[in-house]
Amino acid sequence: MTDKVIYLDNNATTRVDDKVLEAMLPFLKDEYANPSSMYEFAKHASNAIKDARVKVKEFFNAQSEKEILFTSCGSESANTAIRGVLNMNKNKKHIITSKVEHPCVLNLYQTLEKQGYTVDYIGVNSVGELDLEQLSEAVNDDTALVSIMYANNETGVINPIQKISEIIKEKNPQAKFFVDAVQAAGKVPLDVQELGVDLMGISGHKFHAPKGVGALYINSKTLITPLIIGGHQERGKRAGTENVPYIVGLGEACDIAAHHLKYEATEVKRLRDKLEAGILKNIYNARLNTGIANRVPNTTNIGFEYVEGELILLHLSDMGICASSGSACTSGSLEPSHVLRAMNVPFTAIHGSIRFSLSKYTTEKEIDYVNSVLPGIIEKIRNLSPYQDELAQLKKQKSL
Amino acid sequence: MTDKVIYLDNNATTRVDDKVLEAMLPFLKDEYANPSSMYEFAKHASNAIKDARVKVKEFFNAQSEKEILFTSCGSESANTAIRGVLNMNKNKKHIITSKVEHPCVLNLYQTLEKQGYTVDYIGVNSVGELDLEQLSEAVNDDTALVSIMYANNETGVINPIQKISEIIKEKNPQAKFFVDAVQAAGKVPLDVQELGVDLMGISGHKFHAPKGVGALYINSKTLITPLIIGGHQERGKRAGTENVPYIVGLGEACDIAAHHLKYEATEVKRLRDKLEAGILKNIYNARLNTGIANRVPNTTNIGFEYVEGELILLHLSDMGICASSGSACTSGSLEPSHVLRAMNVPFTAIHGSIRFSLSKYTTEKEIDYVNSVLPGIIEKIRNLSPYQDELAQLKKQKSL
Repeated sequence: MTDKVIYLDNNATTRVDDKVLEAMLPFLKDEYANPSSMYEFAKHASNAIKDARVKVKEFFNAQSEKEILFTSCGSESANTAIRGVLNMNKNKKHIITSKVEHPCVLNLYQTLEKQGYTVDYIGVNSVGELDLEQLSEAVNDDTALVSIMYANNETGVINPIQKISEIIKEKNPQAKFFVDAVQAAGKVPLDVQELGVDLMGISGHKFHAPKGVGALYINSKTLITPLIIGGHQERGKRAGTENVPYIVGLGEACDIAAHHLKYEATEVKRLRDKLEAGILKNIYNARLNTGIANRVPNTTNIGFEYVEGELILLHLSDMGICASSGSACTSGSLEPSHVLRAMNVPFTAIHGSIRFSLSKYTTEKEIDYVNSVLPGIIEKIRNLSPYQDELAQLKKQKSL
Repeated sequence: MTDKVIYLDNNATTRVDDKVLEAMLPFLKDEYANPSSMYEFAKHASNAIKDARVKVKEFFNAQSEKEILFTSCGSESANTAIRGVLNMNKNKKHIITSKVEHPCVLNLYQTLEKQGYTVDYIGVNSVGELDLEQLSEAVNDDTALVSIMYANNETGVINPIQKISEIIKEKNPQAKFFVDAVQAAGKVPLDVQELGVDLMGISGHKFHAPKGVGALYINSKTLITPLIIGGHQERGKRAGTENVPYIVGLGEACDIAAHHLKYEATEVKRLRDKLEAGILKNIYNARLNTGIANRVPNTTNIGFEYVEGELILLHLSDMGICASSGSACTSGSLEPSHVLRAMNVPFTAIHGSIRFSLSKYTTEKEIDYVNSVLPGIIEKIRNLSPYQDELAQLKKQKSL
């Protein structure tokens, strides 16, 4: 089993679906024309982009293909949305976001604070649910933008986007609502009309398209400035020769994902629940950090009390098992996760918290294997812990 | 011959080299880890990026890999360079560029003018050579940035970058010099140290890497702000999960191109010259728009007097021959090229000017075929021209 990787870090990235690669390959080979060129040969490429845009539009359930912008990644989607909206409303200087957004989005807000914006960071409760009352109180006439993620990358906790939209629009119908749906895409439906969002960003590599392509839904009533200024591509909203192969791949991945949501909600969830139940049953110092919160089907975030998470990951890696302790973008940092801190996860568990994130490629055999080796790994690490008394106490409580 | 495309539009984009695709494929299949992850499996991806960075560094002849930034396209490279430098020097509001830069760069400057910058647009002479005296006069103490392209996309005319650098630095050593080398990469050497540039941008798809990846050289003494703010990737200068497959492809393409410059300077040039000589010999209303100017080896820009360029392109396209009348980014516009206008190409030729751009994949047979069919195409179109008297006059002059 150890010569093959068991990849339980699908919130960091995913394997490209073979069908996605197959759809892309012609555009990495013979169909290499620049889609902006006028001759017949280029029509294959420009038509392929058109087809992909329809697929992505349907994935978002947007009203029109004109509302879909292709980007190079989730970060570009977020930067385009956030800065694009703010640039169009320069007299408004108030932004609302949450304490548990992706570090990339939080970094951008820190930069905007230095540029004169006021940012309110809404908190979450102990299982990671957003404080909607605090959010409602924060919205005012000066609010240009509210940006709340759909599902959290570390915990998988889903925010009630439709409800949040209603809260915002009731207090300030002009405020724009951007949803970072990078961790929701491919796991739960993204229905921008039902959810009532103005902008929504996704990243292909989180649902089996390659790294290096994303999309941004921009409601037709929402105006933005381009982030990359130059050519006429993407209706003037994003300059640069289109990445035809990856755009085709993203379209295909959206199409596949749309037909796969049921599998996520049933099979992937079943395996995630099996992993989770196995861990909680067999490892007495394990706790589910998200409690009863509503989550995407593939993610579990478990705190192993009184042990060091990095050590667990190292042992798992030695056995070919990939998992993580936070976002890949902050890997290597020794700071405990800002998400778990916002949830007030007790200090006894926060340093030993591990995220396991599954995908459609995860097998029952893999989950059984992880469940069979993890108790031994944790025991080995527990034996090195300076908190032996506390551990003994925990063990006693659990066995009661 | 008509079932196969004869692609003479390699300044618009190029075919991906089979070796580039081969290098990329493992990262579109099994090696899908996020390079920021900590486990063993991710090392393959992060090491692949490291290797690619060394290759790109060598392609630029940069001093250090730390000077290389991966981007998603040439437009992103230019936006990052230009806005990044200006943001770091907010008290300086003067920019110098040329009238014949790529439309994407010119669009960005028009936006910057609205934001309070003064932009001087340096002219060119009748063969497309930059007015160095005008440039020298324009540099002043308030100059934050000079941005001049290495080779022009429409004409292939090469700017004397080293000399330009000396002119700038003599008058204002603090002014930063950005070179858009998108059309030079793979055609002539890019030696940033010898050329004395501060920043230089390239785009992979112009030299047989895929569309959707670029690079920016940033001299270690030159500070920029990131365009895409977020994660720690690219040493904080460009957020977003790295596009590992394309970065690997770009590295490979740089490596291949570096070893292929001699072929460009000899074989590609020989075929270009053969095409050019054939056209000028056999078509009496043809003129070489660039005269004796120094050009990249693959490009020729020919004005067919008193006929409509779009009609020529249509006939060529019908025969499977791809060429263009300007940049792909402005395709479909009926405005004559801003580059040819800046050169004062006579109105009799400007509307009938066609760019042919070759690559290493262009064959002698293809060139012979184009030379055999083009005179007939032009004659057919000439017969429809309302300028029969002028054409008769031209024919008489040529036969003298």
